[in-house]
Amino acid sequence: MPQFSQRASQLTSSLIREILAATQQPGVISFAGGLPATDLLPKLNWSSVPFDTEQYGMSEGEPALREAIARDAQKLGIRCTKDQVLVLSGSQQALDLVSKLFIDPATPVAMEAPTYLAALQSFRFFGADIRGLPTTATGLDCDALRALAREVTPAFTYLIPTFQNPSGLCYSRADREEVARTLDELNIPLIEDEPYRELCYDEVDRTPVCALVERTSWVYMGTFSKTLAPGLRVGYLIASPDLFPWFVKLKQAADLHSNRPGQWLIAQWLGTPAFDAHLQALQTAYRSKRDTMQAILERHFTDLADWQKPAGGLFFWLTLKQDCDTRQLLKTAMAAEKIAFMPGEPFYPTEGSVTGHLRFNFSLATPEQMEDGLGRLAGLIHQRMN
Amino acid sequence: MPQFSQRASQLTSSLIREILAATQQPGVISFAGGLPATDLLPKLNWSSVPFDTEQYGMSEGEPALREAIARDAQKLGIRCTKDQVLVLSGSQQALDLVSKLFIDPATPVAMEAPTYLAALQSFRFFGADIRGLPTTATGLDCDALRALAREVTPAFTYLIPTFQNPSGLCYSRADREEVARTLDELNIPLIEDEPYRELCYDEVDRTPVCALVERTSWVYMGTFSKTLAPGLRVGYLIASPDLFPWFVKLKQAADLHSNRPGQWLIAQWLGTPAFDAHLQALQTAYRSKRDTMQAILERHFTDLADWQKPAGGLFFWLTLKQDCDTRQLLKTAMAAEKIAFMPGEPFYPTEGSVTGHLRFNFSLATPEQMEDGLGRLAGLIHQRMN
Repeated sequence: MPQFSQRASQLTSSLIREILAATQQPGVISFAGGLPATDLLPKLNWSSVPFDTEQYGMSEGEPALREAIARDAQKLGIRCTKDQVLVLSGSQQALDLVSKLFIDPATPVAMEAPTYLAALQSFRFFGADIRGLPTTATGLDCDALRALAREVTPAFTYLIPTFQNPSGLCYSRADREEVARTLDELNIPLIEDEPYRELCYDEVDRTPVCALVERTSWVYMGTFSKTLAPGLRVGYLIASPDLFPWFVKLKQAADLHSNRPGQWLIAQWLGTPAFDAHLQALQTAYRSKRDTMQAILERHFTDLADWQKPAGGLFFWLTLKQDCDTRQLLKTAMAAEKIAFMPGEPFYPTEGSVTGHLRFNFSLATPEQMEDGLGRLAGLIHQRMN
Repeated sequence: MPQFSQRASQLTSSLIREILAATQQPGVISFAGGLPATDLLPKLNWSSVPFDTEQYGMSEGEPALREAIARDAQKLGIRCTKDQVLVLSGSQQALDLVSKLFIDPATPVAMEAPTYLAALQSFRFFGADIRGLPTTATGLDCDALRALAREVTPAFTYLIPTFQNPSGLCYSRADREEVARTLDELNIPLIEDEPYRELCYDEVDRTPVCALVERTSWVYMGTFSKTLAPGLRVGYLIASPDLFPWFVKLKQAADLHSNRPGQWLIAQWLGTPAFDAHLQALQTAYRSKRDTMQAILERHFTDLADWQKPAGGLFFWLTLKQDCDTRQLLKTAMAAEKIAFMPGEPFYPTEGSVTGHLRFNFSLATPEQMEDGLGRLAGLIHQRMN
């Protein structure tokens, strides 16, 4: 065998990959993935892609797209110009660039526990010493962050304050302000990931925490994969001026620049009435799917689990009333019922440290599949608990 | 300032970025870049991009494209199936993934000296201890590779055997076989980068060394950026079966997958008569540009430098007869004459260890610009040498 790097030892087989592969089998009802519904993607019009997008482009991204992104961010209160916008090959790429910029083996990094799996995996891959921060009903436990900062200096804090993945949590305005104040005070850079902000079904505060910090460095990550077309692989980051030039160099080293036809297409949509109408339609459709799943969960899971109806995003996050390793439960559910969901354990910095949670995606399954699949899953859990 | 990773210290300002930025000024004649000529790119037909390319895709790439790539590689003698093909966001991304898989701080890596700048930068960024291997008139100095292997065990050897960048060298068949034998014997993985293989103007052997190795692990890197459309950011790697699964995981972590509309478009071209005709036209046009520059160099540089007419690729590589730091020469040329070229020093693993080389791109400048720019540059060098 060739001699690999130390970090390659982190490239173990991913539970997610295995689960998603298993859900490809015929007859499986899956609540595991997080894909947008294909029939809710808009039909893009490729017919007038400009010829010059065939040539190499700028590492920073297409000027028109950067401007449109900056305009939208300014409306959210983020103090930025287009010169702070870096177009990426999906916002996934921001995780890679953030890791490269900040993480050496054993570098402390703070994240919500539970948190987004791909972020966990990326930071782990680069050797981070990941410190989980508990969340509350309304946001982040800032006392825990302060306590952590007395022990180590995290290179950054990665947060998903709006429709958090997997928990669905949306920080209150007061919590957003407190987090911003705390990070400013502790001088810890903020990496704020906001893939789901437009998938909003109820009135909630969604002010980016990046718009509230006053002194510390920050990175705001966004994507068009949940609203327009994930297959284009176009996302972005906006960074405070001290960080931005570093990210441009990292982007250039990673893949020179993101594909230009995709950038051009997205620039055609942003800020148009058609895009606003599309977002409205998307919200209406997903709200209805969420409400359907909520009603079905109330029927089948009320005595089994606790959960909050999520105000946005694509997931329900359940806490079973009786403890259970949901990775084992998944195996049984797949084998006995061909039902897939995401077990909660992998979302925690120390896998297996917290058990008894399940994540259900509600964007893909039909109401019939929800009723059938969740009903049978509830039956299975009842059996196991007796 | 935030606390960055150790590797971030390698993200110093890049000479290349500075040069390319400088060439954007009006009135500059540039031989510095390596862009394909925009007017030689084919007009792509976007009108029937399938709707389903808007959804997330597979990390490995689009099945139809992987198959087409594997078919072409098999014709070159590479023993592979489509299951060993990984579509990338430009072949630049292969450098990033190779670095991640193999390089820890101080990991020895072998490369030709001079070699491709972006590869040098990527491997350096991850902390590699880069060992330059001298080339000969017909290929690689395999004795130097053997001597190196007695001292350290390189994690891999990175080579560009066909129309090497920057030197234009194309390994002879005998040298390709000797390199393959040597790598097999020493059990050193081969990373073979072949961006220019289709830009071929004379009859030369272009058998990939990857097709000749029998035992050691290998990665073959290819791109469509020189032949179809760099703006799509679609390249690929093909890897020996022991390495392939690692690269899939690395790709997924980096950006999930490459943009699907671009993959679809390229799959429409590969293996078609239209693509073959396009390649013929490209070769004819670039051959003519090469011959023009050769004639102009013969007029102005015969007493100043030695060079080989390149059989392919996009560059001439000159060795000045009188030693000179060409980074300084560039500064003077830009200031006094608004002429840009690539100084040779940065292409060497130890920058500044070898001086007196210049790289001229011949794909972009018009014959008039070549005559004017190279004539004036030769005049400047004459002045400095007296």
